[in-house]
Amino acid sequence: MNTRIRTILLLAFTTPAPVWAADPPAAPKPLTTAEIIASAAPTDWRRLDPADTLYLDLPSGRVVIELSRQYTPRHVAAIKTLASAHYWDGLAITRLQDNFVAQWGDPDNTRKLPPIAVMPPEFSRVAGPDLTFTALPDPDGWAKQVGFSDSMAAARSGQDAWLAHCYGAVGVGRDNAPESGTGNELYVVIGQSPRQLDRNVAVVGKVWRGMELLASLPRGTGDGLGMYEKPEQRVPIKALRLASEVPEAERTNLEVLRDDRPVFARFVEARRNRRDDWYLHPAGHIDVCNVTVPVRDVR
Amino acid sequence: MNTRIRTILLLAFTTPAPVWAADPPAAPKPLTTAEIIASAAPTDWRRLDPADTLYLDLPSGRVVIELSRQYTPRHVAAIKTLASAHYWDGLAITRLQDNFVAQWGDPDNTRKLPPIAVMPPEFSRVAGPDLTFTALPDPDGWAKQVGFSDSMAAARSGQDAWLAHCYGAVGVGRDNAPESGTGNELYVVIGQSPRQLDRNVAVVGKVWRGMELLASLPRGTGDGLGMYEKPEQRVPIKALRLASEVPEAERTNLEVLRDDRPVFARFVEARRNRRDDWYLHPAGHIDVCNVTVPVRDVR
Repeated sequence: MNTRIRTILLLAFTTPAPVWAADPPAAPKPLTTAEIIASAAPTDWRRLDPADTLYLDLPSGRVVIELSRQYTPRHVAAIKTLASAHYWDGLAITRLQDNFVAQWGDPDNTRKLPPIAVMPPEFSRVAGPDLTFTALPDPDGWAKQVGFSDSMAAARSGQDAWLAHCYGAVGVGRDNAPESGTGNELYVVIGQSPRQLDRNVAVVGKVWRGMELLASLPRGTGDGLGMYEKPEQRVPIKALRLASEVPEAERTNLEVLRDDRPVFARFVEARRNRRDDWYLHPAGHIDVCNVTVPVRDVR
Repeated sequence: MNTRIRTILLLAFTTPAPVWAADPPAAPKPLTTAEIIASAAPTDWRRLDPADTLYLDLPSGRVVIELSRQYTPRHVAAIKTLASAHYWDGLAITRLQDNFVAQWGDPDNTRKLPPIAVMPPEFSRVAGPDLTFTALPDPDGWAKQVGFSDSMAAARSGQDAWLAHCYGAVGVGRDNAPESGTGNELYVVIGQSPRQLDRNVAVVGKVWRGMELLASLPRGTGDGLGMYEKPEQRVPIKALRLASEVPEAERTNLEVLRDDRPVFARFVEARRNRRDDWYLHPAGHIDVCNVTVPVRDVR
């Protein structure tokens, strides 16, 4: 049965390429996603800038978050201020709602916030010529168009553009008032994309490494919202730092595949139409939240 | 900050309805999803039939699966045969791939299978007049139309209908040959809906209770497919039984909201357009995999 277990999911692009014996001539085999990724040139990859990267260090390991350079400048600046002040160190993940979000902050409301001015909502931005946006060919029910900005899932309708709530999206918790988010309560999407949150919250970035550390945490049971009801259930934050403020030897240096290169389009096409031996029915479609952008360690 | 944590997600329909003071007259407040669900009549709910219900009992608790009555009769019959033979008892969850699936079966391939005839694929069925299907008004990129059959997410295109790979969908692992699935390797979707699997696998049912027990398991690291690499990492299956073969006193009796009732349409509409005080921008859309069908214990 092991072969069955394995072969059901040739989805993973880590599957090694098959080796072909000297069979009769046939149509050329389409490249696997692994082969497409391997064909990328060094310049097809973008290295995360340590000045825009956060490390959420948990007892189980490190979560690497990239902050958006294009969508939420005021919120990103506030979050950097908080990280530089070591605001979150010793605080905790306080909420884990199944199929929805992991969230952290100051559960007892005792940590003094550094001075942060009230921010505009930044729930979307103007889709002007300064915005980079690589469109997907596929329709989307939540927006006129979807695609990628800095390889993060994004969407636009008319003049509005925003980062989409896909798996791994990082957002800023807020109260009912639109300008009430200070950046000190952050959440990460851990389940089916809750796109209804789009344009209602500032999405500030994306987890590029370590999602499994968040998504596998025990679910909370409080208030029907996944709150950890007892302090001892909370998951302590060892540190949440800007990568640029961590010694170089302790950094996790990552590269993501750039969305504006032909190899990215080839990768997406190989995911839209799976052509390995397992698939009988290539979908001819992909949802922006189903595009798992390749990430690799810098060698 | 606690109010901020809570109010970000008035999404949960457990949020209590606000109490209104004697304010000036205003437009009537839309019902909350909790109020809509509370308004359902007893006949708006469907009790799971123990003859179509599986209990996957893990050390951490029980996962309740309903087998489809309409889509995959041959596979469902095979699975019932396996459960009645106690085939899975003492076997294990062998795979946990982040944002994808939990899967169980016979990792060492030592358990004798009861006699099961080779089955037709059942990856889709004819959308004939005997199929119940409540359509969603919203477009879908993966199928001509989406909706619900027995309150399970489903899809159809032309004459084909199938159960959709949403969070909690249960499918039958197979090898490359379409008829190679015997039903003894089952997987459950634990992340963003992998709809590319639609029409490539037999989806046999849906988890109605206990998803958090599967989705919070440690991720495996083997083969890039989330396999548990060491036997001691596997999660033992205490028992996997048909509910009808479990003593009544030990059953978990559930009801799900019927998809063919007006109250279901009102519930979906309240999720398509969130109108509580937190939302600024109702989406006017929902993905079939974002409809979290209400489930309750039988009182």
